[in-house]
Amino acid sequence: MQILGIDMGGTNLKLGWVANGEVLATSQVKALPKSSMLENLSLCKSESIKLAQQIGASLNDLQGVGLAFPGLVDSKSNRIHSTPKDKFEDAIGVDPEAMVRELWQCSLAVENDANMALLGEWQFGVGKEYQNIVQITLGTGIGSSVIMEGKPLRGTHFQAGCLGGHFTLQASGKPCICGNRGCAETLASSWALPGLIRESEECQESPLRKLPQPGYKEVFEAAQQGDALALRIRQQSLEVWSAVAINLIHAYDPELVILSGGIMQSAEEIIPYIQQYVQQHAWTPWGEVKVVKAHFDQSAALLGGYYRFER
Amino acid sequence: MQILGIDMGGTNLKLGWVANGEVLATSQVKALPKSSMLENLSLCKSESIKLAQQIGASLNDLQGVGLAFPGLVDSKSNRIHSTPKDKFEDAIGVDPEAMVRELWQCSLAVENDANMALLGEWQFGVGKEYQNIVQITLGTGIGSSVIMEGKPLRGTHFQAGCLGGHFTLQASGKPCICGNRGCAETLASSWALPGLIRESEECQESPLRKLPQPGYKEVFEAAQQGDALALRIRQQSLEVWSAVAINLIHAYDPELVILSGGIMQSAEEIIPYIQQYVQQHAWTPWGEVKVVKAHFDQSAALLGGYYRFER
Repeated sequence: MQILGIDMGGTNLKLGWVANGEVLATSQVKALPKSSMLENLSLCKSESIKLAQQIGASLNDLQGVGLAFPGLVDSKSNRIHSTPKDKFEDAIGVDPEAMVRELWQCSLAVENDANMALLGEWQFGVGKEYQNIVQITLGTGIGSSVIMEGKPLRGTHFQAGCLGGHFTLQASGKPCICGNRGCAETLASSWALPGLIRESEECQESPLRKLPQPGYKEVFEAAQQGDALALRIRQQSLEVWSAVAINLIHAYDPELVILSGGIMQSAEEIIPYIQQYVQQHAWTPWGEVKVVKAHFDQSAALLGGYYRFER
Repeated sequence: MQILGIDMGGTNLKLGWVANGEVLATSQVKALPKSSMLENLSLCKSESIKLAQQIGASLNDLQGVGLAFPGLVDSKSNRIHSTPKDKFEDAIGVDPEAMVRELWQCSLAVENDANMALLGEWQFGVGKEYQNIVQITLGTGIGSSVIMEGKPLRGTHFQAGCLGGHFTLQASGKPCICGNRGCAETLASSWALPGLIRESEECQESPLRKLPQPGYKEVFEAAQQGDALALRIRQQSLEVWSAVAINLIHAYDPELVILSGGIMQSAEEIIPYIQQYVQQHAWTPWGEVKVVKAHFDQSAALLGGYYRFER
C-alpha cells in the first residue's frame, strides 16, 4: 500500500511518500498561513508530483492521504474543529475529504498532529511493544497524545489526551493562549521562553537577553557555560516538564512516556531528569513507567498516516 | 434484583439494601481499621442481617454484594491493588470474592469507591442524561472518576480517572501523601487544612487557630464573618478546586462535572464559583461544560453497586 503523508505545521508543510510502512521520499515547503486550506493542499499536490517522480511512482498509486493537522480534529468524520490562531482558519468550514478527492482522487484520513505522530511511534517506532503510551511534544507549545489499552484516546469532542500542555500548573497563574491560566505551556515552552527571559530580574548580563529570538537550544548552551539565568530557566523548565509527565501518568495510566519535539535536541539532559523525577514521584504501585525519546525525528506523523489506512 | 451495597470508608462502613434501583434500607457502623478485611466484612454480614429483618427480606434474596473500596481496584478480577495507609492493608493479599461467597453465598463486584459513586450518579442521579462525565469528590482528599463515551474509564492498572487530586498544581511544591509534590490535595483538602492554617502567618487572632480539628465547614463560616485567614483559605481553595475541574475537563473531555463529598455542604458557594471559572477558562470550543452538585448525599456508591449487577 502507498499513501501520501502530510504533516501540516504552522510554519512548514512536511510531505512523505510512504509504502509498506516505509517513508520512501520526503519534502518540506513553507506553509501559506494566510492562505486557504485548498491553496495549501494544492501546494502539497505539486510537491507530491515531484515526490512521485523522485521514486518512479505515480499519483494513481496512492491509496490515501494521511493529513496531520495542528488543531482539534474529528478523525471519524474527517472534519477540523479548531485551528491555531491565524493559521488555516478557514479549515473549520471546509470538507477536507472532498478537497483530497478532487486533488488526488483518493480518500483522506485526518487526525490531530500529535495523535498522528503517536500512531507512527506506536506502530513503527519506540512504542512498538506497548499498548499504554503517553507522548509529550515539547516545542512551540506542549502537545500530548495517548494510547490507552491499545486504542488512541480521543474523547467525545476529540479533546481527550491532546491538551497535556494546558493542564494548570499554577492556580490563577498567567493567562495562556488557550483561555486558561497557569497552563504548563505558559511556564516552559518555546513560545513562552522570550517572556520568561524578559520578565526575570536576575542576571542582566545574561547572553540570553541579547538574542532577538532566544530558544531552548541557547538556554541549554548558556546553562552549560554557567549562566545564572539560563540555569534557573533550565531548572524551572525541567521541573515543569516533569510535572507534566507526572500529570499525564496520573491521568492516563501508561507504561511508557515518549518525549518528542524540537526541544528534544537536548534529550540527553532532559530524559534522565524526567525519568528520575517520575521514578521518585509518580504514583504507580504496579511498577515503573519508562521515559524515552521518540524514535523518529520528522516522519512519525507520516507513518501514522500510513497506519490509518493499513488497519 | 436485590443486592447488598457496602461503601467501605476509612472511618465508617455504610451499608444499603438495594432492590430494583432503590435503596430500601441503610445502616452505618464504625470501620475496624486495624482489623482484617474478613473481620470488617463479617461486621457487614451482621449488619446485613439486621437490614434484612428491617425490610422483611432474607439474605438468600441477595444476588450480589457491591463493594466500594477506597483504593486502586481491579474491577475485572475483583482484586484490590492499593489501600489507604493503615487501613484494610491486608486487603491486597486476600480474595474478597471468596470471602463474600463464604459470608453471603453470592457474587461480588468490587470497585474503587469514587468509580462506584459515579456509576450511581450516572445511572440513577444527576448524570442520567450524560455519557461523558467527570466527578470530583472534595473530602478528606480529592477523588475523581470518569465516564467517557458511555463507559467507565479505568486504564490498564485501574489508575486512570481516579487520581485527579494528585495532578500537580505546584511544580516542586509540598510533598503529598502519594509521593508526588504539589498535588491539588496538598493545597486544598480536609487533610491538608490544619497544616494550611498552622503555616499561614496572617491573622494570628483567627478563630480557626483555636479549633483542635478545623474543617472546611468552619472555614466557610468564619469567611462569612469576615475572618481574614478564612477568606484567604476559602479563596485559595476555590481557585485550586476550579483548576482541578479545568484539568479534568482538559484531560477527559466531559460535558458534565459533578461535585460531591463532605465539603459540598458549602455547595452554594462552591458550585457557582467553579461554574463561572470553567465558563471563562476551560478550552472547550464545542460548547460549555455544566458543573453540578451530586444528587445523592450518601447512597451513590450503594446504587453504583446495584448497577454493576444490573448491566
